Amino acid sequence: MTATAIDRQSSPERVWRNARLATLAHGARGIGLVTQGALLIRGERIVFAGPERELPPASGARDEIDCEGRWITPGLVDCHTHLIHAGNRAREFELRLRGATYQEIAAAGGGIISTLRATRAATKEQLVADALRRLDAAIDEGVTAIEIKSGYGLDLETERRMLQAARELGRLRKVHVHTTFLGAHAVPPEMSGDADAYIDSVVGTMLPALAADGLIDSVDGFCEHIAFSPAQMSRVFEAAAKHGLRVRLHADQLSNLGGARLAAEHAALSADHLEYSDEASVEALARAATVAVLLPGAFYFLRETTLPPVALLRRHGVPIAVATDCNPGTSPLTSLLLAMNMAATQFRLTVEECLIGTTRAAARALGLESEIGTLEAGKLADFAVWDIDAPAELVYRIGSNPLHSRFWRGR
Amino acid sequence: MTATAIDRQSSPERVWRNARLATLAHGARGIGLVTQGALLIRGERIVFAGPERELPPASGARDEIDCEGRWITPGLVDCHTHLIHAGNRAREFELRLRGATYQEIAAAGGGIISTLRATRAATKEQLVADALRRLDAAIDEGVTAIEIKSGYGLDLETERRMLQAARELGRLRKVHVHTTFLGAHAVPPEMSGDADAYIDSVVGTMLPALAADGLIDSVDGFCEHIAFSPAQMSRVFEAAAKHGLRVRLHADQLSNLGGARLAAEHAALSADHLEYSDEASVEALARAATVAVLLPGAFYFLRETTLPPVALLRRHGVPIAVATDCNPGTSPLTSLLLAMNMAATQFRLTVEECLIGTTRAAARALGLESEIGTLEAGKLADFAVWDIDAPAELVYRIGSNPLHSRFWRGR
Ligand SMILES: [Zn+2]
Ligand SMILES: [Zn+2]
Repeated sequence: MTATAIDRQSSPERVWRNARLATLAHGARGIGLVTQGALLIRGERIVFAGPERELPPASGARDEIDCEGRWITPGLVDCHTHLIHAGNRAREFELRLRGATYQEIAAAGGGIISTLRATRAATKEQLVADALRRLDAAIDEGVTAIEIKSGYGLDLETERRMLQAARELGRLRKVHVHTTFLGAHAVPPEMSGDADAYIDSVVGTMLPALAADGLIDSVDGFCEHIAFSPAQMSRVFEAAAKHGLRVRLHADQLSNLGGARLAAEHAALSADHLEYSDEASVEALARAATVAVLLPGAFYFLRETTLPPVALLRRHGVPIAVATDCNPGTSPLTSLLLAMNMAATQFRLTVEECLIGTTRAAARALGLESEIGTLEAGKLADFAVWDIDAPAELVYRIGSNPLHSRFWRGR
Repeated sequence: MTATAIDRQSSPERVWRNARLATLAHGARGIGLVTQGALLIRGERIVFAGPERELPPASGARDEIDCEGRWITPGLVDCHTHLIHAGNRAREFELRLRGATYQEIAAAGGGIISTLRATRAATKEQLVADALRRLDAAIDEGVTAIEIKSGYGLDLETERRMLQAARELGRLRKVHVHTTFLGAHAVPPEMSGDADAYIDSVVGTMLPALAADGLIDSVDGFCEHIAFSPAQMSRVFEAAAKHGLRVRLHADQLSNLGGARLAAEHAALSADHLEYSDEASVEALARAATVAVLLPGAFYFLRETTLPPVALLRRHGVPIAVATDCNPGTSPLTSLLLAMNMAATQFRLTVEECLIGTTRAAARALGLESEIGTLEAGKLADFAVWDIDAPAELVYRIGSNPLHSRFWRGR
């Protein structure tokens, strides 16, 4: 971490004064509003976040930044993306709007297979260059940590290339990248529908090799009739456990196969989508302290009508995160701010739930709740400064971006 | 037009070569695709738009720009906005998500009244500064012409200030502003619900004064149970005709009062919203050559379920435009690209309909179809250059902006 080393040597303390804060701190009421606040940074860590009158005295040189009343929040965390992929599915989108059938779209080269083919054909450099445009859009909106899944390779070499590309993105930009191995995304065409045989190679070959390369931060799957059964996902999760890796799951999106319950049984970091989850599943998530990640972009794009069980999630105290699900087939969405508006408009999440869902709860979905996601002493200094009059504007506005400035590890 | 005068003196011809064009030209098939195209500009006008091999020889000095295969479309036209307003309604949005009742929101200062009060209290300079942020967001997405309505003053002085602010925006930025007088937006509170008396002042005082000031390009109203009846709107339209002004109407959004039919009878430039329009109304629009302006942002934000009659509009050949309806109460949306995606996703407009709807048809809704909205010889050189592989990407992507560069009147 060269930048950080330089930072520690040359930077004095820095304080952002005359700010309004939404700390999102755990103990705080609501989203931790501080109306006359200050944020004190030393190196890459937060030293103080609270009322300006309680600001600790300077321990040496101290730079001061006047925020002119602007709002500061934790940096945003997008905890579910398929940011790395080649090609796009605009043509398929166009054909579908013209009323094309599934067969016609497949004949025109559409569907996940088209993304698979394009991704397998792309070099690591091409994958990085293409994803950088999407990553930069996220960064421009104040995102400081992002999860990126593999899953468009479905063979060892391409899955490795995707995860390497994800790591490379984290070196190229001031952002934390959490890599997720999503080998169990779909059965690749060369397996002729033999899902069990493909899972053999996921758990026997891909997962061990990629874990040994240090490319996996967590392991994901798609549990659905059109993908993998709970029994098949169990095998993947058991393999992950052997490698000391936490898991997450695309669960209960289109039907209830018990995916969320399965995720909870494996102490998953998150269970994602959840439109069809029932109360028993929600109770299981609560017991396991698994985060429910809601993905309103896919709900919107697919014109779904079955809402995720928000009332049940609230009643049982399941932490709720909100993410973009950025992917070419079902959510070509790069804006986490817009995902918040969609979560409020479509799912009726409150403003506070949306803000928690893209900071504190999203950090927890990445297993990073002790390092990021709130403005609290000791945490990494990842934060965003906004040209707004109230935090609610971050959720209320549709398709605009009031970011003033953004800091990652204090810089 | 100082900039234009300078342009004409100093600029030679300029040609954008190695481009892909969507000309949107009237006679062309679909959206007028040209795969190896060129765009030739002299001064502020287009001289040629078509296949590069047919490019006319230079008549003197000629600058060449290599587009490197990028796509060029006409500049986008947002033909329905309430861009000028003070304050925002984020607090109201927040309360509603918490389940607040109408009374609680009114008590907390919500509703159109809150925008009215804030707008009346704002200076022209404040209105301009606030709207500039929204206008710049539109410009950043390739918008080169925009309609801006009054209607949050509902008294002569504030309506004048709003329209003056709109004109000022057109001087401050390289964009064409079409001003619309929307005095008949709501009955102001001081009229105690006497809509007829308020219409007296709209037609007897406001309209004549503002028309004399040269501040009105067209006249609009809100025809709905909660606003004005067809009989009241007829009085406004008759007054507009006396001043030689074309009209448009917020029609059939929440119920069918015959608003679209009324608009057609008055040869309106556009009838807007139209969720509840029936076939007789659509036939009337077709006969009057009135543009149907669809506003998917309001449909989305209000969680409406009754779709506008797209099949009827197609069958009867009514031109369809798509706009943001940017306003603080029901569509806090500044992104016309996102409005296109919403029109496709929610209303099932095709990609071509969305692109026509934000260029050629939108220009027609402003009465400017002979000057802008297509890439054709003789038209003003308003165009956008995009980093995309196909025009469908402009509709398919959600919340991203692939604009490469933008030109207004050739500059
Ligand atoms: Zn996903
Ligand atoms: Zn409107």
